[in-house]
Amino acid sequence: MKVINYTDILPVTMDNDMVKNVAGRLLIGREDGANNFSMRLFEMGSKGHTPKHSHPWEHEVFVHKGTGEVFMDGQWHSLSEGSAIFVPPNVEHQFRNTADKDFAFVCLVPPTAPEL
Amino acid sequence: MKVINYTDILPVTMDNDMVKNVAGRLLIGREDGANNFSMRLFEMGSKGHTPKHSHPWEHEVFVHKGTGEVFMDGQWHSLSEGSAIFVPPNVEHQFRNTADKDFAFVCLVPPTAPEL
Repeated sequence: MKVINYTDILPVTMDNDMVKNVAGRLLIGREDGANNFSMRLFEMGSKGHTPKHSHPWEHEVFVHKGTGEVFMDGQWHSLSEGSAIFVPPNVEHQFRNTADKDFAFVCLVPPTAPEL
Repeated sequence: MKVINYTDILPVTMDNDMVKNVAGRLLIGREDGANNFSMRLFEMGSKGHTPKHSHPWEHEVFVHKGTGEVFMDGQWHSLSEGSAIFVPPNVEHQFRNTADKDFAFVCLVPPTAPEL
């Protein structure tokens, strides 16, 4: 069992040509005994974005804070607090912050994916 | 693919001897092509709580709004926005709202669990 607040986990910062102004945290993973899926939280500051990419595993995403957009199916879709997004396997996707405040979402992946 | 806000989904209300003042929504499930885990959101009003029970599947929970508590391992643990909870299989657990405002969390389950 585990009870933790994400703000108590040290983030891994990501900032390069593909990923801008993103802090990632593994909240629940295989080390906790979670063998079927892992929960991560990504927080991005102003102009932050994830890479535009695809991979053989799906994402299940829930927007916790802020406003942003997800690129899927050739277009950008608006996201706000409470949005849920299913990205099927092998579908190109990208998330970006569209405001000056932080944009944060949880993103779950199956065991075939890297945990963070 | 799917993009939806949970507030646009009609809730299933639960209010009986075991579950009090809870509204449940399936956000992402097998009908969407999500074969590895399903995402639900539970929102509870004042004095709301889930059943105290155990089952052979795990929960991965993320607190989106409000403050509450989870019973696990024989004690109550405080929860606030941003709390992540891993409930392993066969561990007795219960969630409850401890404030007068709504308490809402996402709860993910593997395919062996009922979706809602």
